[in-house]
Amino acid sequence: MLNSKDKLISHLKETIDLTREEESIVCDSYTEIQLKKKEVLLFAGEVSNHMRFVAKGCLRAYHMDEEAKEHIVQFGIEGWWVNDLYSFLTRTPAKQFVQALEPTTVLQIHRDTLNELYEKVPAIERFYRLKFEKAYVALQDRTINSMSKSAEERYLEFLSKYRSIEQRVPQYMVASYLGITPEFLSALRKKIK
Amino acid sequence: MLNSKDKLISHLKETIDLTREEESIVCDSYTEIQLKKKEVLLFAGEVSNHMRFVAKGCLRAYHMDEEAKEHIVQFGIEGWWVNDLYSFLTRTPAKQFVQALEPTTVLQIHRDTLNELYEKVPAIERFYRLKFEKAYVALQDRTINSMSKSAEERYLEFLSKYRSIEQRVPQYMVASYLGITPEFLSALRKKIK
Repeated sequence: MLNSKDKLISHLKETIDLTREEESIVCDSYTEIQLKKKEVLLFAGEVSNHMRFVAKGCLRAYHMDEEAKEHIVQFGIEGWWVNDLYSFLTRTPAKQFVQALEPTTVLQIHRDTLNELYEKVPAIERFYRLKFEKAYVALQDRTINSMSKSAEERYLEFLSKYRSIEQRVPQYMVASYLGITPEFLSALRKKIK
Repeated sequence: MLNSKDKLISHLKETIDLTREEESIVCDSYTEIQLKKKEVLLFAGEVSNHMRFVAKGCLRAYHMDEEAKEHIVQFGIEGWWVNDLYSFLTRTPAKQFVQALEPTTVLQIHRDTLNELYEKVPAIERFYRLKFEKAYVALQDRTINSMSKSAEERYLEFLSKYRSIEQRVPQYMVASYLGITPEFLSALRKKIK
């Protein structure tokens, strides 16, 4: 079985080329974190100082409204990057919590280490240039484009985006991500079957 | 007076270092476009294949709703980059028009040329990595964060963001950008004075 750092390297190499020496520099730059189920990795109000790769397990990013109701913004499973990216990029307090939904392994890199890594391994700068392009597209899809989509369309997108995740997280969380009630989600699933 | 390409180089050098040789490669990669007042640079429905830097003049990016009403999303003055970035990144048809509001000079680079330039001048990859980070932050500010701001706050932000632009564009366009009526904008301006 691949260990966490092998998974990160193999993930990076889907996009960029790395020499053996560069692989080793990259591995040394990320720190492994083990989270228990329900453990919180980032609290709203803290500044997010790390980029975070999910090597194993499952996380959710959510924000809490004034009535303490939770709204899930993103799930993160193996091979995903999970963060409050706005907080990371602007060094302002996070608006989102990031919490493990299963025992989870995360590899994270501090912003200062990342800036050093850009100098040492230029291919990493390409990787993150492409990552931020994708983050821009995903943000626009989630905000502007999703307003014009029906709940059914958003549910089908969810299924294609997070393969196999439906069996892993409670249905009320899927409903929260879609912005619908659990009852409506249940009716949608019956309709689609 | 600086010519357009000197302006681009000096803009890039605010963020990255370039050797003389690299400057010359960069200059050769961008094409200069002259636009007359009211001329359209990008039509909704076309795929945007270029990144575009405003060397002189003023542009607006806007989308048209189903009732043919125009909504201004962005202005671009000297030193700004203007585009339908979503269209550029996803190669899907643009939802926005980009139009000159004054005689305007734009320097543009095709996506294929840009990909070659990343190889030839790695500092350019850094420049765009940082550009896409800022684009992400600006998009989130414009969508999620702006919903919670008053028209007065948004107007003050507009003034600090686009210095000196208020004298250059018609008031009804400023109102369109802020999502308010020209009458309400006029009342706001009196109040702030």
